[in-house]
Amino acid sequence: MTSTPPTGEKQEFNRSGLESLLTRRFFISPAFDIYNGVAGLYDYGPNGCAIKANLINFWRQHFVLNEDMLEVDCTSVTPEQVLVASGHVAKFSDNMVRDEVSKQYLRADHLLEDHIKKLLKDPKNTKEKIAEYEHVLAKAGDYPLKQLQETLNKYAVKSPEGNPISEAKPFNLMFKTQIGPSEGSVGYLRPETAQGIFVNFAKLLEYNGSKLPFAAAQIGNAFRNEIAPRSGLLRVREFTMAEIEHFVNPLDKSHSKFSEVADQLVNLLSAEAQDGDKKIIVMTFGEAVKSGLINNETLAYFMARTQSFLHTIGIKPNHLRFRQHQANEMAHYASDCWDAEIRSSFGWVECVGHADRSCFDLTSHAKASKKPLEVFEPFKNNEKKVIDIIKVDVNRGVLGKTFKGSAGEVSEYLKTVGENHELAYNFQKDLEAKGSVVIAVNGNEYIITKDMVTFKQDKKTISGSTYVPHVIEPSFGLGRIIYSLLEHSYWTREGDANRGVLSLPPIIAPVKASVLPLVNNEKLLPFIQQINKSLKEQGISSKVDDTGVAIGRKYARTDEIGIPFAITIDFQTVDDQTVTLRERDTTKQIRIPITELSLTIKKLCDHLIYWSDVVAKYPAYEPQAESK
Amino acid sequence: MTSTPPTGEKQEFNRSGLESLLTRRFFISPAFDIYNGVAGLYDYGPNGCAIKANLINFWRQHFVLNEDMLEVDCTSVTPEQVLVASGHVAKFSDNMVRDEVSKQYLRADHLLEDHIKKLLKDPKNTKEKIAEYEHVLAKAGDYPLKQLQETLNKYAVKSPEGNPISEAKPFNLMFKTQIGPSEGSVGYLRPETAQGIFVNFAKLLEYNGSKLPFAAAQIGNAFRNEIAPRSGLLRVREFTMAEIEHFVNPLDKSHSKFSEVADQLVNLLSAEAQDGDKKIIVMTFGEAVKSGLINNETLAYFMARTQSFLHTIGIKPNHLRFRQHQANEMAHYASDCWDAEIRSSFGWVECVGHADRSCFDLTSHAKASKKPLEVFEPFKNNEKKVIDIIKVDVNRGVLGKTFKGSAGEVSEYLKTVGENHELAYNFQKDLEAKGSVVIAVNGNEYIITKDMVTFKQDKKTISGSTYVPHVIEPSFGLGRIIYSLLEHSYWTREGDANRGVLSLPPIIAPVKASVLPLVNNEKLLPFIQQINKSLKEQGISSKVDDTGVAIGRKYARTDEIGIPFAITIDFQTVDDQTVTLRERDTTKQIRIPITELSLTIKKLCDHLIYWSDVVAKYPAYEPQAESK
Repeated sequence: MTSTPPTGEKQEFNRSGLESLLTRRFFISPAFDIYNGVAGLYDYGPNGCAIKANLINFWRQHFVLNEDMLEVDCTSVTPEQVLVASGHVAKFSDNMVRDEVSKQYLRADHLLEDHIKKLLKDPKNTKEKIAEYEHVLAKAGDYPLKQLQETLNKYAVKSPEGNPISEAKPFNLMFKTQIGPSEGSVGYLRPETAQGIFVNFAKLLEYNGSKLPFAAAQIGNAFRNEIAPRSGLLRVREFTMAEIEHFVNPLDKSHSKFSEVADQLVNLLSAEAQDGDKKIIVMTFGEAVKSGLINNETLAYFMARTQSFLHTIGIKPNHLRFRQHQANEMAHYASDCWDAEIRSSFGWVECVGHADRSCFDLTSHAKASKKPLEVFEPFKNNEKKVIDIIKVDVNRGVLGKTFKGSAGEVSEYLKTVGENHELAYNFQKDLEAKGSVVIAVNGNEYIITKDMVTFKQDKKTISGSTYVPHVIEPSFGLGRIIYSLLEHSYWTREGDANRGVLSLPPIIAPVKASVLPLVNNEKLLPFIQQINKSLKEQGISSKVDDTGVAIGRKYARTDEIGIPFAITIDFQTVDDQTVTLRERDTTKQIRIPITELSLTIKKLCDHLIYWSDVVAKYPAYEPQAESK
Repeated sequence: MTSTPPTGEKQEFNRSGLESLLTRRFFISPAFDIYNGVAGLYDYGPNGCAIKANLINFWRQHFVLNEDMLEVDCTSVTPEQVLVASGHVAKFSDNMVRDEVSKQYLRADHLLEDHIKKLLKDPKNTKEKIAEYEHVLAKAGDYPLKQLQETLNKYAVKSPEGNPISEAKPFNLMFKTQIGPSEGSVGYLRPETAQGIFVNFAKLLEYNGSKLPFAAAQIGNAFRNEIAPRSGLLRVREFTMAEIEHFVNPLDKSHSKFSEVADQLVNLLSAEAQDGDKKIIVMTFGEAVKSGLINNETLAYFMARTQSFLHTIGIKPNHLRFRQHQANEMAHYASDCWDAEIRSSFGWVECVGHADRSCFDLTSHAKASKKPLEVFEPFKNNEKKVIDIIKVDVNRGVLGKTFKGSAGEVSEYLKTVGENHELAYNFQKDLEAKGSVVIAVNGNEYIITKDMVTFKQDKKTISGSTYVPHVIEPSFGLGRIIYSLLEHSYWTREGDANRGVLSLPPIIAPVKASVLPLVNNEKLLPFIQQINKSLKEQGISSKVDDTGVAIGRKYARTDEIGIPFAITIDFQTVDDQTVTLRERDTTKQIRIPITELSLTIKKLCDHLIYWSDVVAKYPAYEPQAESK
């Protein structure tokens, strides 16, 4: 991968240079490292923590405030029944094997992938073999357990140490705990923040005046007990998510503000292209919805808002794409999913998911909790409508004889068909055309024949419609975004590979301004206090460097942690109360009165004005060459 | 308790009125209530969540930014050895008993307290009995297990249902889990955020240029697996803390900014007064430090900063006091502790702890991790000093004969005495004076006699001093502060107990402005969009109420959730592009041009100007009486 410095030539991205910077300047560090650490747990130091806080603030502004979302803050500790209903207890797992000698657990699909990658390196591979390996590599992450085991067997995969491995078995990725002293009270740490929104749906709907559409949002920690975490910050056991659940009428997924984003261009990798030419399609969101590539306006609107969010924080547009889920990776209930993927030195990494999850979540919780999670939408102007309905009457005798103990659940199911006119209409048509219809109830199939049901045309007066909303879910992994952003921001000054710069936009930079006396002289010191105080009054974070090193070294130190603006106090300051202001990326300086300094920096940090505006307004200052 | 409305007469505080408001307008709600909830877990709805976010932002500004603290963000999942070292695995527990019939677990000290409270109600109690009961009531929460059991036996305490109870036993309050698939990897959810700071001490010190003093801060969730939570929001199992660890040289606990707070008055309840007249002493922080009541300047400085923080967010000064820990509740290593307690309808509740924890935490982690957690402070101007030292040589023969298997640990201890000149000097003096000295090593006592050690005067050249810093810890429970604040802010309009108002200061209010068309008329609607857009550009959250109800009803709705400013669009708006601006507490209105509206509200919300400034600047507007 190449870095693209804001000034100068492209350069090879240097991951170890960045990693050394992040550790040395305490952006991020393995947690509990004085105790030799725990894989997959990381702490944010002062610089990383400030970036994260800035990112969250901007996210709130860009999404919650701008879109009038209902933000909630729910608990991480979650009782078992909630996660049984959501499907996580049964299905939120990865498959693992155990090294039979070292007794280490390994993630089975990763082990298979690593093995296949090794096989691919053999120069004697035939074209067919290569195609076979590449196919396995593309699909291994989504193999069900049985297929995974068969494939491990087929290639006789061993552990990285060459030891035999156990059978693969699923490991649930939720951290399990006990709530209170009673042993029966099983709880888990939430694997995502979304469930907290779903279980609060009825209250949120009421809060919103019983009107749809509306979006709820949540920023908070989620936990995944990874089997054997690797890839540093990209696969961790505890991380901060920001999730949105936008509830819509299933029959109307248009979005009132779609026209504002329809002309934005976007890089799309469709499901089809992934099995074919793998080419990115560049088109507008408007075209993508019109052509049916993106399922609906609301989904596309959020993709566009995500894109502008990522661009503003400093993700490089050419390293951002949206990849559509293929059939084998998409949940059965989802109608369309697009991952915003960011390219880093680890390849393309999913950072924001966008899924149309249909009514799955609300239906599941309604069923398990026996509380209705649905919307009644009255007709406009208190209108009433008389509608055709089809009453479905079951023939209990025939049902009982045919299905015995299951007759009850079949009968129950057929009644619910009757409550939905469209369903009933189609069912009747099907049955009349084919003579029998197969239905699936609680995982069992039953053949319904004409003698079991009778249909009656009827009328009913209604004053509105009741439905279970569909939900469109943009889901952000903030840690992954931060790491990708750090990669995109990192470069080194021309001719000096040790002089790293983090070109973070002011809105994200951990510290906004550095306050630097040119030399350590008593006359300059009072200005440090004065300037610091006025910066704090504007809410601008600053860092003083009053050590004895040369000014060029001070600039290098502040460039390295991405401080966008450096204020230098020199002897002219004593004479005329002006200081120089230096912009990090260009290293250009201007001279500005202290009285105008804080407000100017504040506006720069809020992206209300840009550096070019400042250069146009104030006289340039030409320092001696920056010495190190 | 009485409420003190900003306008009008004092009134009785109505807890059920507030609770109904908080549920109805979705500030806070029992978590997972569609599944019948889990005791001690609460979710914040949109209004509560916004208050919490505002509180955190202001906390960051007031503490982290203003004091140049190093903020970190560490994981909640914590490996067992860290919490063994901190003492939590062994000691972080409450005692419980089980109702032998219902099998419910109960917190033993609460059960005892409830029983004693019942006994106290007997009108036939003698003076002596009353004194006895009150003494038990005051101390029950701090009884060690044995004394608690004896007292339960003495009073023959039964469960609330009148059933026999089991023996009391400790229950560890940490949520336990397993990290990864290996069963041996025990982890816990952190019971406080502080440990994350301690284990990162060496990196933070380096980040700070190896200089002391400095403070690190962390805002994040903590978890306590309460036995049987009650008292609603005041005792919960998952909550957000904001903690500061200020590291200082143990020989110098002065604070450079203490003079800024020395003249502030404070309500102090000393340890002594708690056993005596129970009177609050009102004095300045300067006097409290000078008289020795508060142990040192740094501790007092943070108490003062906490006080100004709480006053600014809206805690009533007369409902705030600082209570000093008594000997029986203070950890053995702590030198002084003061809890900021806020009075609510539940009584005085600890909301912010302030503890001088000495070097306990760093010493514990240094010992357990075998990593030095100390500071080397070079002398000024690269000075070197030749110091007297006392070398302690042990007589192995005598030690071995006397202490057998324990000789090793005694010898080790005596050597460490030699490393500390003051300790060695005193030890030598004592031994010579008394002939023997008793030492305690790992909980065992040994008598050291003269024949076991010889002392040698010596000299050593040093270039600085090495020490383990002491730490002063202000620790905020945000949920408790929020609940107390809601109680302090709640009152009802004169003559209408159903018309609740939350007088939250603008900086904390969940929504800053409401946008209200006087009536639903097409001519007024375009102004809603225009005003909303300009509010958003200033980052001001707003809420539109365009329902068909009367304007007075709209005001009541926004008063109830504490919106400080209401903008009303009327027919004059169409003519001259002005609107009325109404202040919540006084209900007074002024007329202001739309062009000046957003910036004015922004300044009001940042507390840069006050309502009185606005009233002075703009013409008053007298509406018809607010109708309901």
